[in-house]
Amino acid sequence: MPHIPLPDGLPGIRGAMAFRPETARPLNALVEVLLQGPGTLSLGERELIATYVSTRNCTNYCHSIHGAIAAAHLGGNEELVRQVKVDYTQAEVSPKLKALLHIAGKVQQDGKLVTAADVEAARKEGATDLEIHDTVLIAAAFCMYNRYVDGLGTDQPVDPAFYRERGKRVAREGYVAVSQEYLNSPTTPTAR
Amino acid sequence: MPHIPLPDGLPGIRGAMAFRPETARPLNALVEVLLQGPGTLSLGERELIATYVSTRNCTNYCHSIHGAIAAAHLGGNEELVRQVKVDYTQAEVSPKLKALLHIAGKVQQDGKLVTAADVEAARKEGATDLEIHDTVLIAAAFCMYNRYVDGLGTDQPVDPAFYRERGKRVAREGYVAVSQEYLNSPTTPTAR
Repeated sequence: MPHIPLPDGLPGIRGAMAFRPETARPLNALVEVLLQGPGTLSLGERELIATYVSTRNCTNYCHSIHGAIAAAHLGGNEELVRQVKVDYTQAEVSPKLKALLHIAGKVQQDGKLVTAADVEAARKEGATDLEIHDTVLIAAAFCMYNRYVDGLGTDQPVDPAFYRERGKRVAREGYVAVSQEYLNSPTTPTAR
Repeated sequence: MPHIPLPDGLPGIRGAMAFRPETARPLNALVEVLLQGPGTLSLGERELIATYVSTRNCTNYCHSIHGAIAAAHLGGNEELVRQVKVDYTQAEVSPKLKALLHIAGKVQQDGKLVTAADVEAARKEGATDLEIHDTVLIAAAFCMYNRYVDGLGTDQPVDPAFYRERGKRVAREGYVAVSQEYLNSPTTPTAR
């Protein structure tokens, strides 16, 4: 049960966002730019970074939904998502993405662990400054989203089918678009 | 030296934000709502939560600047900020803020550590649902900002005078207002 009264029927971060639309708007805007905005990392690669960090933080809602969104962007390849969650070094992803996941894993622990050699290794595999920046910020941002979801004790369904359907929809419509339904929900004022 | 070429003369998160204005806008909007928007926690109390989490993450830039902003909101009481950084349980702050700092400290480690008893203890000291929500999100958000600042290897000055002056200005003008100078800086496009 959530630690504060969140609206029913909105699991994970969605209930928290419906409770506090003022903070939900920048939270959605940030993830929209990072994960679906213009960029040279593919949408699937960015979602894999978010999924990997959320897996390391053991936040079921986030690694399930972002894993499902990643799979939707990757032609339904749930096996690849599973590989990245379990051991990305053995996954069938590019050397560049492996170098970026290595950086993301360090940021998940502590940003100070990232070394010049880690960044140089990513550059040697073709990563640009902007891709390195975005990898650090995606990893950092999911350390926020994960703690937000866990710290409020939100409901986190365990049925993969729930995430699969929602993941397809977010991949198709985007974060800001799918959030409108509960940001404008009539339950919001009374939930406070 | 930063891991990617950030604009000169903008230490900490400011250089990172100038490098990537598209993500800087929601990052600034979030901190503005949480730390300076309408609310029943005082501006000083909110900055103390941000300062405490940043101290636990050992991110010098963030705990220095938010400590300075907190002091500016608290009539220049730098000693109180120092007490909260070192051991908030002995600091001259309200029992309610101590209960909220206890929750923030757990979120800094892992949101799953927050218990119903922690939340009940804060409620007994008068904390509202919204104050509990915002405490969790401030703590989570600073786990992002801290990792972002550290993960890019940004410059983090050590001179307290630098932070004292900047802190007064942010306390007076707000986050979004003071960020305009570098979000619209002509250095931005070439930094990419």
